[in-house]
Amino acid sequence: MSVGDLYLIPTVISEGTERAVIPTIVLEKLKSIRYFLAEDVRTARRYLSSLKIYESIESLNFSVLNKDTKEVEIEKMFGPIFSGEHLGVLSESGCPGVADPGSLAVNFAHRKNIRVIPLVGPSSILLALMASGLNGQQFAFHGYLPIESKECVQRLKL
Amino acid sequence: MSVGDLYLIPTVISEGTERAVIPTIVLEKLKSIRYFLAEDVRTARRYLSSLKIYESIESLNFSVLNKDTKEVEIEKMFGPIFSGEHLGVLSESGCPGVADPGSLAVNFAHRKNIRVIPLVGPSSILLALMASGLNGQQFAFHGYLPIESKECVQRLKL
Repeated sequence: MSVGDLYLIPTVISEGTERAVIPTIVLEKLKSIRYFLAEDVRTARRYLSSLKIYESIESLNFSVLNKDTKEVEIEKMFGPIFSGEHLGVLSESGCPGVADPGSLAVNFAHRKNIRVIPLVGPSSILLALMASGLNGQQFAFHGYLPIESKECVQRLKL
Repeated sequence: MSVGDLYLIPTVISEGTERAVIPTIVLEKLKSIRYFLAEDVRTARRYLSSLKIYESIESLNFSVLNKDTKEVEIEKMFGPIFSGEHLGVLSESGCPGVADPGSLAVNFAHRKNIRVIPLVGPSSILLALMASGLNGQQFAFHGYLPIESKECVQRLKL
């Protein structure tokens, strides 16, 4: 029996920009995916609906993947992939697998010899780096800053 | 007199994938840009031709921007932007401004209060990071490795 692939599906950073920033290949690949992992199922459904490529999204299946998801749960979520279905990972915003729980699924896939296919799309980290004018030949990302201003200032002072 | 914007225009990493990976917004913004900075003018022309959005690319203007380009030359290349024309920066492959001379133009633009607009597109660094399964919450890019195998091995051992 053939095994499916794990697709990393970028989403919009700013609502309403689907047609502008999501490349054709994402829409094409999505047509062959019925199982999804997402941090928040509501956001995921809303995004897939907004792409207007489905007659109905009712037949799509979603599992919640967040930073607390355990290995044994991930194994369960991968069930369909072992039956030959493709699996899509969606981030809350931008590209999955970078600074989000999507990397847990990618890591699992590598250990099981499942093909991982990252697709092109918006990434706040990359766009910021491009627009920075700094030397992009060497850089480090230290993670997102805390939202609370007190904690944020503290982190910046480190 | 109004000043133009500096657009960072992603190109394909793999030839022939234009229609799949370059988002609509890139094609739309390109229609308003007649002046470009590029590492290699031939590659830049070939890429813009491949997008099939121009009747002819003969009316487009290209300046060579590479790692040895001096400040005074960059200032000259920005001439059209001060006359209200937009300026586009193209990389040899993928997203300009990250590990390529595009950052020199971005840096100059910031110092002259010119608006810098990064557009969404393919980035080998980001795609590799997404597909790595590693913790993308903290990471460092140490630059491209040397092509020569001896130098490459040496660098990896550092």
